Amino acid sequence: MLQLSKEETLALRDKHIGKSCQLFFRKDPLKIVRAKGQYMYDERGDAYLDCINNVAHVGHCHPKVVQAGCDQMTTLNTNNRFLHDNIVLCAKRITSTMPENLKVCFFVNSGSEANDLALRLAQTYTGNKDMIALEHAYHGHLTSLIDISHYKFNLPGGVGQKEHVHVASLPDSYRGKYRDTHYKKEEIGKLYANEIKEICEKIQKEKGNGICAFIAESLVSCGGQVIPPKDYFKEVYKHVRAAGGICIADEVQVGFGRIGKHWWAFQQYDVEPDIVTMGKSMGNGHPVACVVTTEEIADSFLRTGVEYFNTYGGNPVSCAIANAVFDAVEKENFREHALVVGEYLLDSCQILAKRHKCIGDVRGMGLFVGIDVVQDRLSRVPDNKCAQYVLQRMRDEHILISIDGPHSNIIKIKPPMVFTKENVDEVLTTLDRILKEYRHNTEIYTINSSRHKKTADISSNKEHRPRKQSKDKIKSI
Amino acid sequence: MLQLSKEETLALRDKHIGKSCQLFFRKDPLKIVRAKGQYMYDERGDAYLDCINNVAHVGHCHPKVVQAGCDQMTTLNTNNRFLHDNIVLCAKRITSTMPENLKVCFFVNSGSEANDLALRLAQTYTGNKDMIALEHAYHGHLTSLIDISHYKFNLPGGVGQKEHVHVASLPDSYRGKYRDTHYKKEEIGKLYANEIKEICEKIQKEKGNGICAFIAESLVSCGGQVIPPKDYFKEVYKHVRAAGGICIADEVQVGFGRIGKHWWAFQQYDVEPDIVTMGKSMGNGHPVACVVTTEEIADSFLRTGVEYFNTYGGNPVSCAIANAVFDAVEKENFREHALVVGEYLLDSCQILAKRHKCIGDVRGMGLFVGIDVVQDRLSRVPDNKCAQYVLQRMRDEHILISIDGPHSNIIKIKPPMVFTKENVDEVLTTLDRILKEYRHNTEIYTINSSRHKKTADISSNKEHRPRKQSKDKIKSI
Repeated sequence: MLQLSKEETLALRDKHIGKSCQLFFRKDPLKIVRAKGQYMYDERGDAYLDCINNVAHVGHCHPKVVQAGCDQMTTLNTNNRFLHDNIVLCAKRITSTMPENLKVCFFVNSGSEANDLALRLAQTYTGNKDMIALEHAYHGHLTSLIDISHYKFNLPGGVGQKEHVHVASLPDSYRGKYRDTHYKKEEIGKLYANEIKEICEKIQKEKGNGICAFIAESLVSCGGQVIPPKDYFKEVYKHVRAAGGICIADEVQVGFGRIGKHWWAFQQYDVEPDIVTMGKSMGNGHPVACVVTTEEIADSFLRTGVEYFNTYGGNPVSCAIANAVFDAVEKENFREHALVVGEYLLDSCQILAKRHKCIGDVRGMGLFVGIDVVQDRLSRVPDNKCAQYVLQRMRDEHILISIDGPHSNIIKIKPPMVFTKENVDEVLTTLDRILKEYRHNTEIYTINSSRHKKTADISSNKEHRPRKQSKDKIKSI
Repeated sequence: MLQLSKEETLALRDKHIGKSCQLFFRKDPLKIVRAKGQYMYDERGDAYLDCINNVAHVGHCHPKVVQAGCDQMTTLNTNNRFLHDNIVLCAKRITSTMPENLKVCFFVNSGSEANDLALRLAQTYTGNKDMIALEHAYHGHLTSLIDISHYKFNLPGGVGQKEHVHVASLPDSYRGKYRDTHYKKEEIGKLYANEIKEICEKIQKEKGNGICAFIAESLVSCGGQVIPPKDYFKEVYKHVRAAGGICIADEVQVGFGRIGKHWWAFQQYDVEPDIVTMGKSMGNGHPVACVVTTEEIADSFLRTGVEYFNTYGGNPVSCAIANAVFDAVEKENFREHALVVGEYLLDSCQILAKRHKCIGDVRGMGLFVGIDVVQDRLSRVPDNKCAQYVLQRMRDEHILISIDGPHSNIIKIKPPMVFTKENVDEVLTTLDRILKEYRHNTEIYTINSSRHKKTADISSNKEHRPRKQSKDKIKSI
C-alpha cells in the first residue's frame, strides 16, 4: 500500500473529505497509523496514551477479536435472511445480560441506526410521536436523531427544535437547575424527574395525546459525563409510562461493562427500560450495533406487516466480532478491572482536586469519568479556557483526552478497558503538572499582562518529544 | 465455536430476533455456513448458485478483499478524526470515477446512512423540504427514508405518505403509464419526466417554495429491475433544477461497475447528479458506504457549523476493504466481464422468451437483469404465481433468485460479478425446465382440477439433491 506523507494525507483530506467531518486537533492533527491496547502510534512511531476511545472497548486491535473477525470474513459474510449461528448466539448472549422481558434483538450497523429504529419501534407501539430527551443530549447523526439531540439541533446553525420534541433539564446535581448546594442529595432525582412529569402533563393537556418515548443515555456523555441522581430514572419511567410512553435507555457510549458493576449502566438505577440500544464498544471499532426490546413491542412492529431489512445488520462477521468482545470482557475480567481501575482513577482525581482549586467536581462510574473544570469552586463558573489548555498540553505530552459538556469545560476520560493503574498515574501526574503550569502562566499573565501577552498561550509548535512511561504516582507527588 | 443444529438455530432465532427481520424461504429457510465466489454452502455442504447477492460484488469472501480487511484490522481501526491514508485514497479513487464537480466524500456505514445524509445535505443546501421520489422506490430502512420510499410507506401497515413527499410514476416503458405499445420509444422518457415537471409546478404554486430534491436509483431495483428510458433523467434533472431542487442518484444497488460499461449507472444517462450515494457492493459485505457531492453543497453544510461525526464512517478497515474492492474490479476486469456475461445472460433470456410465452419482457444492463413474468403477452398482466413457483423450484434446484416489483412478478438476477457464462447456462436451462413444468402442471390442473388438486403445488418437502454443475447450454436445449 502506498504510504503518503502527512502533508499529502492532509492535502487529499482537504480536497476530498467533507469539512464538516472535523479532525481532532485541527491545527496540527494526528496521523495515526497503528494502535494496540490503550496506545495509538503516529507515522513517526510515537505512542499516544488513549484515554478517550471507548469504541476500542477491550483495547485497540485485541488479537482475539481480530482473529474472530478475520476467520469469519474468510468463511462467510452475508445478510440475515439466511440462518446463521453467530447472530442467534450473539442475541442469546446480549439478552442473557438484560432483564427477562428484554429478549428480542434487532441488529444494525451503528448506534445511530439503533436509535433510529428504537424511535420507529416506539412510534409504532405507542401510536404517539412526542419525544422527551435531555438538554445537551446526543443520540446520533441521522435526521430523526438530530431532531431529538439538543446538543446538535440547538446550535446556532442547527435545525432548531421540532414541534414533537421536548427537552428536559440535564439531571446534573453539580451545575444544573437543582444543585447539591441548595437541595438535599436524595431529593434532587425527584425534582428533575418532576420536570418530565410536567412535560408529560403539558403534552397530554395541549395535544390531547400520550407521549411516545423518553430517551436518555444512562450516563450522559456529551452532556458532560453527568451521572444522573440515584432515583432519577425510576421516577422518570413512572411518569413517562403513566402518560402512555415508553422508556429508551441509550447505552451506546456507556454499555458493555464500562461501569464495571453491571453490564449496562441502567442497571445501576434498578430500572427496566422498554428498549435498550447499544453500539460503539460492541464491535471494538467494527460497525455493529443492536436494539433490544420486549416481545410486545417487537410484535407491534411485526403487525404492521412491514419487513425490517438491514443489509449488513447482524451479518456473521459483525456478530463474530461482537461475540469475541463479549468473550474478552468475560474471560479477561474487564468489568472487575474497570471497577478497580475506575475507583483508583476517581480517588486519584479527588487527591488532585485537593491541590487544584480549578477542579470543581470529579464524577464517574467505572471507566467513565469526568473532571469539571471551574474558575471558582464557590460559583462553579466553568473554565473552558483551562480545559482547552489542558487538552492541548496533554496532547503535547502524548496523552489523548477530550473536552465536552454545555460549557466545554469537562475533561472526559473513557479509555479502552485495558487501561491500567499505571496509566492513571501517568495521566494524573501529567495533569497535575499542566494545571500547575496553567496557574503559573495565568498568574504571570495577570500580573504582567502588558509585558507577557502570550505567556499563557499553548505552545503548539513546541519540539516533539516521544511519550515516556511515567513511573511517578499521583499519590507520591 | 459451538455449532448449533439447524433446528436449534431456528429456535433461537424465533426467540431472540425480531420477526420483522424476515428469513428467505420462511417455511424452510437456508442455513448458510460458508460462501465462495458465486456459491453459498449450507450446513450439509450443499452448494447454492447465488444469482442475487449484489452485495458480494466481487464474489463471496474474495481472498484479496478479506486479506486487506484482516491486515488493517490487525493494525488499526479507529475514527476519522485522526488522519489516515485509507480514507483519503478511497475518496480520491471514488471521485476519480465521477464527473469532475463531484469531488467531496462523506463516509458512512450503510446505503441507508448515505441516503439519510444526502437528504440532510439537500435540505441544508436548498433550504427546501419537498422531496420527489419514484413509485415503488426503496431508499433505506431509516425513518427519513421510509418516508420517501413508496415501496414501504404505502404498504397497508405502512406510515403513509407525508406532506413533504411526492411520488412520480415509475418510468417503466413495459408496464407503466406510458408503454412502448402506445408511445414511441423516444418520447416515453420525456412523458415520464413531464410528470416531475408538473409535480414541481404544483409544489411551487401551492406551497410557494422550491423543491428540495429528486431522488431515484439510476436503475430501479425493488421497483422491478426497471431501466428508465434513455432521456428520462436528463429531462427530469432539468425540471428539478429549474424548481430550485437538486438531483440525487442512488447507486447503492447498481453502482461500482455492475452495469459494465460505466462505474455508475447514472453515467449511462449522461447526467451529472448533485449527490451520488453508494453502499452494498462497496464493501463486498462489509458495512461501508459513501455520499459524494459537490464542493458547493458540502460547503453549505459546513457553514451550518454543525459537525458531522460518524463513529465508524471511513475507518481504516472499511476503507481498506473498499479500496480492495476497487482493485479487484479493476485488476480482474469485472466491468468488462459484466458486460460480456450480462449480454450473454440477456441474449439467453431472449432465446428462452421464444419458448415461453410467460416471459413478457427481458431487460437489463450488465449483471443487473429482470425477467417480467406475465399471464399473457398482449395484456401484460403480471403472473406472480408463476414467478413464485419459479423462485421456490429454483431453490429446490439450488439456484437462488429473487422476486420483486409492484406485482411481485419480476425475476431478479443480480449476482456476484464472478458469475460466468456457464452459470448463465445452468440458470437458464433450469429455468427452462421449471417453466415447462409449471405450464404442464397448470394445464393438468386446469383440465383435471377436481382430480389433481395439488399437482401445481410446490413440493417443498422433496428429497434434497446436491446441486450439479450443468453442462447444458440454453442455446442447445
